[in-house]
Amino acid sequence: MPGMLKTVLNLGLDDKTVHGLAKQTNDERFAYDAYRRYLQLCGNVMMGMDWEVLEKILEKRKSQRGYSSDTELTMEDLKVIVMAMQSAIREVTGRECAFDPYSQLWEAISAVMESWNSPPALAYREANNIPAEWGTSVTVQAMVFGNMGDKSGSGVVFSRDPTTGERKLYGEFLRNSQGEDVVGGIRTPQPIGALEEFIPECYSELVDVSQRLERHFRDLQDIEFTIQNEKLWILQTRAGKRTAQAAVKIAIDMVREKLISGKEVFNYVTSDDIEQLLHPVLDTKIERKLVATGLPASPGVASGKIIFDPEELSGLVSDLGGEYILVRNETSADDFPGIRVAAGVLTAKGGITSHAAVVTRGMGKPCIVGAAALNIDDVKEQFIAGDGVVRKGDYITLNGATGEVFAGKLPVVNPRPSRELEELLVWADLIKRLNVMANADNDQDAKLARDFGAEGIGLCRTEHMFFHTDRIDHFRRVILAETEAEKAVALRKLLSMQKEDFTRIFEQMDGLPVTIRLLDPPFHEFLPLPSATAELRVLAKRLGIPFGKLEEKLAALTECNPMLGHRGCRLGITSPQIYEMQVRAIVEAAYDVSKAGTTVFPEIMLPLIGYVQEVEFLKDLVTRTSEKIREERGAEGLKYKLGIMIELPRAALIANELAGLVDFFSFGTNDLTQTTLGISRDDARTFMPFYLKNQIIKTDPFITLDETGVGELIKTAIEKGRKTNPDLKIGVCGEHGGDPKSIEFFSRLGVDYVSCSPYRVPVARFASAQAALKGEGQGQTMANMR
Amino acid sequence: MPGMLKTVLNLGLDDKTVHGLAKQTNDERFAYDAYRRYLQLCGNVMMGMDWEVLEKILEKRKSQRGYSSDTELTMEDLKVIVMAMQSAIREVTGRECAFDPYSQLWEAISAVMESWNSPPALAYREANNIPAEWGTSVTVQAMVFGNMGDKSGSGVVFSRDPTTGERKLYGEFLRNSQGEDVVGGIRTPQPIGALEEFIPECYSELVDVSQRLERHFRDLQDIEFTIQNEKLWILQTRAGKRTAQAAVKIAIDMVREKLISGKEVFNYVTSDDIEQLLHPVLDTKIERKLVATGLPASPGVASGKIIFDPEELSGLVSDLGGEYILVRNETSADDFPGIRVAAGVLTAKGGITSHAAVVTRGMGKPCIVGAAALNIDDVKEQFIAGDGVVRKGDYITLNGATGEVFAGKLPVVNPRPSRELEELLVWADLIKRLNVMANADNDQDAKLARDFGAEGIGLCRTEHMFFHTDRIDHFRRVILAETEAEKAVALRKLLSMQKEDFTRIFEQMDGLPVTIRLLDPPFHEFLPLPSATAELRVLAKRLGIPFGKLEEKLAALTECNPMLGHRGCRLGITSPQIYEMQVRAIVEAAYDVSKAGTTVFPEIMLPLIGYVQEVEFLKDLVTRTSEKIREERGAEGLKYKLGIMIELPRAALIANELAGLVDFFSFGTNDLTQTTLGISRDDARTFMPFYLKNQIIKTDPFITLDETGVGELIKTAIEKGRKTNPDLKIGVCGEHGGDPKSIEFFSRLGVDYVSCSPYRVPVARFASAQAALKGEGQGQTMANMR
Repeated sequence: MPGMLKTVLNLGLDDKTVHGLAKQTNDERFAYDAYRRYLQLCGNVMMGMDWEVLEKILEKRKSQRGYSSDTELTMEDLKVIVMAMQSAIREVTGRECAFDPYSQLWEAISAVMESWNSPPALAYREANNIPAEWGTSVTVQAMVFGNMGDKSGSGVVFSRDPTTGERKLYGEFLRNSQGEDVVGGIRTPQPIGALEEFIPECYSELVDVSQRLERHFRDLQDIEFTIQNEKLWILQTRAGKRTAQAAVKIAIDMVREKLISGKEVFNYVTSDDIEQLLHPVLDTKIERKLVATGLPASPGVASGKIIFDPEELSGLVSDLGGEYILVRNETSADDFPGIRVAAGVLTAKGGITSHAAVVTRGMGKPCIVGAAALNIDDVKEQFIAGDGVVRKGDYITLNGATGEVFAGKLPVVNPRPSRELEELLVWADLIKRLNVMANADNDQDAKLARDFGAEGIGLCRTEHMFFHTDRIDHFRRVILAETEAEKAVALRKLLSMQKEDFTRIFEQMDGLPVTIRLLDPPFHEFLPLPSATAELRVLAKRLGIPFGKLEEKLAALTECNPMLGHRGCRLGITSPQIYEMQVRAIVEAAYDVSKAGTTVFPEIMLPLIGYVQEVEFLKDLVTRTSEKIREERGAEGLKYKLGIMIELPRAALIANELAGLVDFFSFGTNDLTQTTLGISRDDARTFMPFYLKNQIIKTDPFITLDETGVGELIKTAIEKGRKTNPDLKIGVCGEHGGDPKSIEFFSRLGVDYVSCSPYRVPVARFASAQAALKGEGQGQTMANMR
Repeated sequence: MPGMLKTVLNLGLDDKTVHGLAKQTNDERFAYDAYRRYLQLCGNVMMGMDWEVLEKILEKRKSQRGYSSDTELTMEDLKVIVMAMQSAIREVTGRECAFDPYSQLWEAISAVMESWNSPPALAYREANNIPAEWGTSVTVQAMVFGNMGDKSGSGVVFSRDPTTGERKLYGEFLRNSQGEDVVGGIRTPQPIGALEEFIPECYSELVDVSQRLERHFRDLQDIEFTIQNEKLWILQTRAGKRTAQAAVKIAIDMVREKLISGKEVFNYVTSDDIEQLLHPVLDTKIERKLVATGLPASPGVASGKIIFDPEELSGLVSDLGGEYILVRNETSADDFPGIRVAAGVLTAKGGITSHAAVVTRGMGKPCIVGAAALNIDDVKEQFIAGDGVVRKGDYITLNGATGEVFAGKLPVVNPRPSRELEELLVWADLIKRLNVMANADNDQDAKLARDFGAEGIGLCRTEHMFFHTDRIDHFRRVILAETEAEKAVALRKLLSMQKEDFTRIFEQMDGLPVTIRLLDPPFHEFLPLPSATAELRVLAKRLGIPFGKLEEKLAALTECNPMLGHRGCRLGITSPQIYEMQVRAIVEAAYDVSKAGTTVFPEIMLPLIGYVQEVEFLKDLVTRTSEKIREERGAEGLKYKLGIMIELPRAALIANELAGLVDFFSFGTNDLTQTTLGISRDDARTFMPFYLKNQIIKTDPFITLDETGVGELIKTAIEKGRKTNPDLKIGVCGEHGGDPKSIEFFSRLGVDYVSCSPYRVPVARFASAQAALKGEGQGQTMANMR
């Protein structure tokens, strides 16, 4: 019963509905029409009748008389209708509706008040987070009539264009009508400009009023009006809904018009607006054929030729410009090179936290997962979707924001980073306290990060460099080496590669800090799955290792809970040669580029710290290695910072002990969330949807930081850490670093920087400014960034 | 160089070694002998010569002259030896040893002081947790000579028997000898009684002195003495090392003798003593053949016939009296029924935290894991160990304390719970503040727990009841059910079984609380591994499920990090029917037994809580279910307690919010350690040994609670919880509940009870008393137990 819902919500949440019900004019036709409206309200809302019963009485009379509009009803018609409605109400409910207008008024007021607790209103409040204690109110006002002839009418206007933000009156007008008729869609209204011709005085008055209202409320107004015999009545005004583009333009314009201050802009634009403005969107005007639907895992639109084999893909496309959509049952770390160059990813299995989803989101690349209806045939290289077969090389288009897969290559509307948006972000940079850094693992990402306004790299994941096809075997040789000599050979090869990577990144980030995390994932992530026997045989042959030995090694590396296993700094401690190689690559690259004139600020970051002794062990390793290089080169000491990731509850709890040993903390909020909550992100799919649906958990803790639990640990760690080391720099490099709500929390805690995917940098810049404005005057300590 | 080590440690840690070196008598022979000893000390210790070089000079002369003892050396011999040693030292080191006795004295003193920082001393200190800052000291005293003829001699006595604790002088005496000769083992000393015959005055003086020393030091004394021409000299006295049995008897006796107070007993006995007294031990006097060695995973001795198939074993033995040793490559949850009835377990793979190790330790059952040399042939049902083949049915004996596997059935010495031990534990109960409960999953364990003095069951793991061969298929049907009806049928069968289990446990624990944890492990733990295709086919057939469907279901249940997955209360929320069944079984059983006159205190415990809403959801489930049963029975309300496990950092952090909803908290310190430290117990094997060896982690956090990290969270949770709910009962039910050091910590924090394996209950009772005594006068709040 959508009609019912609408009526109730109008009553419950809109204080104007009653305005015309009781006041009767001297014109008997209007009186009967008003009473007809009252009867419908009384029967439907107050007595809970089926909405259609009374509606049908009205429609029947209209069709009998061949009317197309309510305005054609004569007084006689209305009398008949009112009688029929009265007896229908009596028959269905056994009750009578009041005839006395004052009784009607009170009953109507009661109905509105009661509607606040009706089931649909409850549902609506819950969905929109409206607290029950707000309550509702009723405005009673005299009624005006827009249906008194050609010099009457009603309409809706916006004080500016809510789609583009352009400063001009925008809206619709319908002659000889009540407001209902405009909204109801039975008669087609005319653009507001038409009013200028019909009743020019009213038009200019409307323009004037709308500007006055805008000035008064200091925001775009959405205004309902009625004209009764050339007299303009304003029924209602409220802040107008607008597109992201309009939101930005209007806010910036209002500053220029001195309507609002520069800081206030951040109350008029939301982070969602910024986000929306940065994803390319499908042109909705184009006709399209839906092929499949899955879960919207990573927003954005991508078109490309279908390809099923990620290895083939990584061979086909050497740069990031290729137009291919990778289609798989699901993806794994091995597919990384393919995913990296794909325009988008579509999988038949997996949830929004699956490998494909997480990796693509980090890259800002469209992705749809769990499109269960796809029937992928890897051998024939095709899939069946609905009634048709889709083959390798066919074009498809993904809409990552909706989970829709379309046939063909559909045109997209690219996000125009409007002049206004750029201006807004510059203002944001002036206001915000948090520095916004980016996660970037190579020079291309680094360039992107700079383009998006990142103030450095907050997380460079060195292991991503090992996943490249031309490198992974070297790293596998390190893992599988039987002797120190073998290991050393493989490490030397990786050293020169990593050094080149760092060189390029440093050059790209000239003058800005680059935070490099040493190897983090467990060794088995670099090897095929133990069950992939065929692949293993090929690998064994390629590396010249007996197959049995490879299998054995793999079995030894397999873990029950890899998340809590042999990874992070634990690898650096048990296999110090790897970290030594990585530190050497960083330090040598830094020496080289700085000799060539680049200003370099390397920051070395140790992952998964839990114990003071781990930091001591690795700090010694880093110091020794860099000192050795200094001696080899006879150079001056290189300035670098050493920091640790706080991603285990224990690290947060002993932050006071850790802080004295390092220059910075970086909260790895993904892992800290997993350990604090005891929830594996990969495994949450089986219960998290149920939990969210049933409000056991209010918001997904992997999207918005769990302030109560994880946040408490972060707060403790910051307090303890700064007590020991007041100069401690504190950052966040989990995915929460790009989430506006979490950013507000981090800003409140006095975090110095957040780091997120390059694509989220503008959102984070904006959200940081919003957070700073919210926190103003609350006596927070200013962040101490370099 | 064991000789070297011994010398250094004697010097470093024993302050008397120097006493005879410098002081020379008028007898030239003694002077030369003393100089000979000094040369050896000087050459070996101060100049670092190979120990054997000088020793050989001495031995060569003795063998040339046909001497068996040093005392036979004449002055002439000693002159030759001294000359030879001097030139050997000169040749090897190019240095001279001092001849002037005062120079010798100072050099010797320096040598002792320096030895404090020698590598062996460092290693020893590290191994025994002796802080470097303690330093060492040197006692210089005049020398007396026990080798002055038949009325001289030396010996060592204990003021009581250090093996049995019996109150009588115990020790050895050697006529015409220096102390070295007694210790050196070249000549065989006589029992101390012999002294009474040779020099009766000295004997009775020794008896008198030893008693005076004991009274003075209020402890068993280990006394070294020398008799020089019928005059008794006491060289040294110190507290004597003793067996566990002696420790207990001596302490109890000393109270009776009013030497010490009752409370002081707990300073004289250690938890290790109690532990040692409770494990059966191998009779060391019997000859035995070592078959293999592995890691000592669970202490105790077990003999039995070898069996390879756990299923066959569980069929062979219906009770716990069977004598079989289960031999496997490794074990899994499926093997539980077999492990349960085995006398001991031996595995070729796995570490001390493997499934077999953990499960057997919980049961107090001997287990050796990782006996890598075993070559198990499951088909032939035999293994090859060393040169022989050991077959099914052959007897072997495991010594779980050492990791040794012996051929045959070796006799063991059973722990006699001496009268003294029982008395001691009764005293402990009077002193301790912590209640000691036991982990018990069935009525047999419950009986054992009572026998060992447990004050209730602190953890009854309901899922263990599902693992029995006759039940697991019912539970699998619940997991695999396609319809609610199918699920309900299987649950009804389990209901009656669980009800019977609880009935028996309640009966056994009449008058004591029984804390029952609802289902905790993830579903996939109840199913074969996805790779066990053959087993899966059999299972599919048995359950009448298409094989493909079973495979599919299994794949859906498989988790990346089961530890952080869909388990604990998350199962209770997403599959409420299971918890409903379990609550019904508990409540109905409680009604039944209490009607029959048993006093029952059921406590229902929810695992893996992280959110307030989880507790609300499940509290409602428990209340509704028990209320429904009350109505069905028309009975009065049943009194039960509802509690939650705090095993996630988040739960500890929001303890204030949780405490108002429940009657008790139970810290699951195993899981809390895993999440707080980010270390999976199963996976720690790859780096924990390295960490412990290199002191990155000082003590295994899965044995002794990590006070700094995990302890901090527990402290916070207790403070926050008691603030909201001062009546909150607080317990610990992880393995740390049986660890003395952790118990001391828990006692300090004001925990109300610990729960551990029945076999560890006496240790926990003892440790709790020790903890209470340590904490006395520290103003802790008394625990509020029922």
